[in-house]
Formats: sequence, C-alpha cells, structure tokens
Amino acid sequence: MADEHPVKKNKPNTPSNKEGGEKVDWKQWKAQKKEEKRLRKESSLIRKLEKQKLKKEHEQEVQQEEKESKGRAYTLSVALPGSVMDNAQSPELRTYLAGQIARACAVFCVDEVVIFDEQGDSTSSGPFFFGSRSGLSSPISRIEGEFRGVGKKGQACVQLARILQFLECPQYLRKSFFPKHQDLQFAGILNPLDSPHHMRIDEEMEFREGVVLDRPCRSRKGSFVNCGMRKEVQIDKQLQAGLRVTVHLDKNDNKEGKLYNGRVVAPHVPRTEGGLYWGYSVRLASCLSAVFTECPYKEGYDLTIGTSEKGTNADHVTLSPFKHMLVVFGGLQGLEASLDADENLNVTDPSVLFDLYLNSCPGQGSRTIRTEEAMLISLSDLRQKIAAVFSDTSSR
Amino acid sequence: MADEHPVKKNKPNTPSNKEGGEKVDWKQWKAQKKEEKRLRKESSLIRKLEKQKLKKEHEQEVQQEEKESKGRAYTLSVALPGSVMDNAQSPELRTYLAGQIARACAVFCVDEVVIFDEQGDSTSSGPFFFGSRSGLSSPISRIEGEFRGVGKKGQACVQLARILQFLECPQYLRKSFFPKHQDLQFAGILNPLDSPHHMRIDEEMEFREGVVLDRPCRSRKGSFVNCGMRKEVQIDKQLQAGLRVTVHLDKNDNKEGKLYNGRVVAPHVPRTEGGLYWGYSVRLASCLSAVFTECPYKEGYDLTIGTSEKGTNADHVTLSPFKHMLVVFGGLQGLEASLDADENLNVTDPSVLFDLYLNSCPGQGSRTIRTEEAMLISLSDLRQKIAAVFSDTSSR
Repeated sequence: MADEHPVKKNKPNTPSNKEGGEKVDWKQWKAQKKEEKRLRKESSLIRKLEKQKLKKEHEQEVQQEEKESKGRAYTLSVALPGSVMDNAQSPELRTYLAGQIARACAVFCVDEVVIFDEQGDSTSSGPFFFGSRSGLSSPISRIEGEFRGVGKKGQACVQLARILQFLECPQYLRKSFFPKHQDLQFAGILNPLDSPHHMRIDEEMEFREGVVLDRPCRSRKGSFVNCGMRKEVQIDKQLQAGLRVTVHLDKNDNKEGKLYNGRVVAPHVPRTEGGLYWGYSVRLASCLSAVFTECPYKEGYDLTIGTSEKGTNADHVTLSPFKHMLVVFGGLQGLEASLDADENLNVTDPSVLFDLYLNSCPGQGSRTIRTEEAMLISLSDLRQKIAAVFSDTSSR
Repeated sequence: MADEHPVKKNKPNTPSNKEGGEKVDWKQWKAQKKEEKRLRKESSLIRKLEKQKLKKEHEQEVQQEEKESKGRAYTLSVALPGSVMDNAQSPELRTYLAGQIARACAVFCVDEVVIFDEQGDSTSSGPFFFGSRSGLSSPISRIEGEFRGVGKKGQACVQLARILQFLECPQYLRKSFFPKHQDLQFAGILNPLDSPHHMRIDEEMEFREGVVLDRPCRSRKGSFVNCGMRKEVQIDKQLQAGLRVTVHLDKNDNKEGKLYNGRVVAPHVPRTEGGLYWGYSVRLASCLSAVFTECPYKEGYDLTIGTSEKGTNADHVTLSPFKHMLVVFGGLQGLEASLDADENLNVTDPSVLFDLYLNSCPGQGSRTIRTEEAMLISLSDLRQKIAAVFSDTSSR
C-alpha cells in the first residue's frame, strides 16, 4: 500500500502544519505532491509488475504441469489369429510363442490385443476378463471385470489370451488373479514384459495397479487396495473385493503414516495424462470381422492396417493422424485364410478390408515370416511412421 | 537397296530412250531425277531408321539382361556376443534362441554373422568352418574350409556358431556336414530358414549348393557333386571330396542325360550376379575389436553401426552409400559390457567405435529388449534405410 512508504507518510502533512512563508510552503507542498504522485505511480507500477510476475509464474507452472502430464491421446491395437499357437512344436514352445507375442506388444506400447478365431470354432467373443483390463476406457468396465469361463481346454485363442494377460499383470497381483491352470503350466519359462506398470516394491510412481482387498474400512467409506507396496492404499470409493484397479497415489501423502492414500482412475489415465505405457487389454473375437465390429472405442478404429507379403511396399507409405489404429496380422496361411474362414465377409481380397494393406519386409530372405517375427518387424516400421505423424503434425 | 524399289528401277532409263521433244523430255527427265533423288533419300532414311531401331532393340536387350542379372553389390554383416545364449532358461530354449537369431539374419538377407566373445575365454578367432561358407568371397576359401576343433563343450559362442551354420546349410547337405553333436541335440525344434538356396529336389534354379562326391570322373577331369537333385552334377574342376561348393548349372543342359553339367563359382556369385540371397557365413571373434580387425573384406567395413538404447534416435538418421555394412548388437549388459571385457580397447564409450550409434526403438514399452528381438527391430529399421540408399542413389 502507498501509505506504508515511509517517505510518503510524513510528507502530506507538511504544507498545512507550516505557518510562515506561504509562498515557500506552497512551492514545497507542490513539490511534495509531485514527489508523492511519482512514488504512488512507482508503487503502482511495482505492484503491477509483481502481479505480472506472479501471473507469468503461474502460467509457467501450468505449462510445466501440462508438459509433465502430456499424455498420449492415440491408441494402438493389434489383432492376430489364435491359430498361430499351433505353429509351435511343443507345449513349452507354445507358451514361449505366446510370450514372444506379449513382449512384441509391450516393446511397441500396444494398448489392445485382439485374438480372433480363424477356425470359426470359438463360441463367444468379446472382452476377455481374467484379472485384466477390459479394453474399455471407463474405470467401471475394468472394475466390473469378472472371472469368465475359460472355454475349451487347450483352445489356442483362449490359451494365448490367458498367457498374454498373465504376462501383462504385474507380478505382485498374479496370485490374486491367476490360479493354477494348465494353460500356464510352463509360465516359468516366459520372459517378463518389464513394463512401466510392473513396479518393484519401493518404486515411487504416480500410478499403480492394485487389487481391492476383502477388508472393510472403519469409516465404511472407501476400500483398501494392495498395490504391491510395503503399505496398503486406502481409496475414496467402496469397491467390490477382488477387482483390479488403477490407483492414482496422493503425492502429498505422509510417508510415515500407516497407509497410503489414493483414488481410483480409469485405466487409460496413466497413458492419456501421464504419457506412460500401461500394458494392454485383451479381447477375443469370434472371427476376423468381429475384430472391427466389436471395437471397444466408441469412434471405432480410424486407421486400419493389414499386413501381408502381398501388400504394398510400406517404404513408400506415410500415415495420416489417427485416434485408434488397428494393425491386423495373419496366421500361417496369411490373412487370406482368415478371410475365407469368416462367413460374414464375402470378399476374397483382404486389401479391401483395410485402409492400408502393407508389406513391411520387401525383399525378405526367407520364404515365410512367422507371425511373432512379423509383429516385431511391422511394429518397428510403424513405430517410426507413427512418430513422424505425432512429432510433427503441424507441418502436415 | 535403292534399286530394289520398283518405281525407281524403270525411271532412270526414260530420258535417254526418248527421241522426240527434247524440251519435254528434259523436263520429264529432270522431274524423274528429282523423284529418283527423293526416293533414294526416302530409302536411305528408312534404312537409317531401321538401323536405329535395331540398335535400340539391342540396347534394350542388353539393358534387360543387365537388369535381369543385376546383382547386389553391398554386403550386410551383423555381430553379436555369444553370451546371448546364456539368456535362455533351458537347453531347448538355448537352441531355439540360436534359431531365432538365424531366422532374423535370413529374413533380412544378412551375409555374414560374427559371434564375438564377451567373456574373453575363447582361445581362437577367425572364420568358423563347419561345412559352411568361410565369409571370404573367393571359391578357394570355401573349398578349403575344414573341420576345426569345436572348442569347449557347451561354449556359448561355438554352440551359437554351430547352430547358425546348421540352419544355413541346405537340408540335403546336412548329413554330409553335420555329424551328431551335443550342440545340435535339440535341432529338431528349430524353425527352418527357408531361404532361396534351400531348394526342393525338383526346383529349377541357376545356382545350387552342393558337396563334392568321393567318386572320380572317368575322364579324370572334373568331379561329381551332389546338389540335392535327382541326378548328380558334373563340374569342370577336380576338387577334394567333401567340400561344399556353389555350382552354376548349365542352362542349356540336356534334361534327358544321366547327369547335369555345371561349374563351380564363388559363393558370392548368386548375390553379386543373380541378386539372390544366398545365406550367411559365420565367423568367430575372440573379442569385440576382432570383429573389426578380422574383417574378411579387403576394404574393411565402410559403415559400422552400434545399436543401443543409449544411441541416437534412429528416426532422424539417413545412411550414405556403402559397400560393407556392419551392425553390432550388445548382449544382456549392452555393448558397454562387451567393451569392458575387451583388453584391446581403451575407450569406455561404445559410440566412438562406430560410424553411427543408434537407438532403433525410442519410447520402448519394456525396460529391456532381448538381443534376438533387437535384431528384428533394428534390421527392420535399417532395411528401409538401406533401400532408400540403393533405390535412389542418383538423387543423393
């Protein structure tokens, strides 16, 4: 405030208190007034600058926050036939093959894996819940995920789905979600995904995957969640025990307390807000066409790519911006066989199904490329093309 | 010829045979001469055009031939530590891992695989001969390939080399070159390379791999070779029995004869002249530096690339034309560990060893990428970059 200024405080009284030499007093008073005005102006300017500075700092903070929380808006889905499992020579190698597929998906930050039935003997289709993400982006869908039937024992699609989900699930949650099962008999030989959401016990991270515990809170508000940390996490909502949830941990938590605090968020939040890769959801499709028609995203897939040796040379292709990309791989007999097996599709040329039908490996030195190899090769090629789209959208 | 022209043939006699009306005759004669000249010119032009046409056709033929026989001049070598084998959990998976590496090399048309010792316990270094190519490009070197000691039983480098060579060898030659060995105990689970030089019995191809048979020719000139066909091939040179040779089969061979005829060529010929992928040679290196110093190409490697998560983002890199590219992969602990183990190298930063030090998978969704995965990912990325160099050298 202006009157807090020590110089100013004394000066306004000077002209009226003085009795002799009015002329001199007035002159002095005028000068004083002038000085007073100058100081007031100065002070106001300082306040203005301070305000501006604060505003600027706030803006910078917001920008910084925005930058820090800059997420990934798009999603990447891959689809492949479960029959690829039959291209392995032993139960161990069958398991290992599923592990190779899971790792290819993790390395290239795949958000959804769709396993379609090429033989047409699968009865059901839809999200595959087994302590896993549902593929939908609301927290409800994840929470409602239930243990469904596992289908015919040894069925390729279901076994592949189960192994993919087993590997996607953080180690500390596996005993909650994956009871012993023959499909997982050789799980010991699987290479871990080692994804960002597979956290060590003392790792500090904004988000964590957890399981709701069967223990009521005293206050009857909220639930306890095991997030694989030394202490449990108390969340704001009361949820059914046994659900898998994504928890946003309270940053300002008292580290000395008996519990951590957090709130449940949608499984897409670590990706959309944190820019983190947060594993994949798994979906079963009863046929190739169901891969498209049962898309969990409201808007559907807006960029679909088929991969085939018979496709266009991918080297000459650039992508346009997208929200939900789907990349479809064929099995042993290529996408043509998947098409033939699908009664809903009357076309014989797979290229008409996709926005792009690409050959990511022209000039291959082997007559055949196995699907687990094709995934690494094509996703490596597409990763660059995706990076080009999103690093530089302004210039396109 | 001009006198073959029917109109011209009659006209030159006209002026001298005519007796009355010289003026008219001369006028006529002049007109005739003019016409004659025109026709001669026309005829000459036709001949010229015909010649040009023939020349053009010949040129096109030559060009076509050149195009058809247009080989690949450059070579691609990859190097990796044998210690990657220790990243497998069972003898079966160890074998399978070696198979994955072999397939990655075949798919991307790798010409030479160098296996270096990261532990420094390997005693010898150099081309690894085991019924395999030597890596050198003269036919002699292949021919002189001998069975050398296989080193310490179960040693990672040698076992990897053996499995790589076993898979590279066409199936019909394996019984000649690969006696039973513990390293190959689980060879049954290996996925075949299915490369162009792995031919079926009735497949017709200009080149074939074969083994020299222990049966003298009657004429004492030349030898018999088993090329995996219904009949044997007689070659022009007399060679030691048991050698692996690349045979150029005689195109104009009498298919009804008792034998096929062919001549031995250098193993690089199917690539340099036919543009075919013809498998890889295998070389052992006692340490990382030996990968460079023992290069089988006289000129050395003129483009060396190290791959690492710590490398430059490969997306912003284009290659310059090269003759012999070398791509080096690290093991479990990355190239840094390979560098530490090498007493000949006093640097600690691997990037100084290479022309380019690249990260082919920025933004990876797994904390680690296994070497067998990195090979498919990086070679997929480099394939495009190589294609860009050689498809379009004129614009660079």
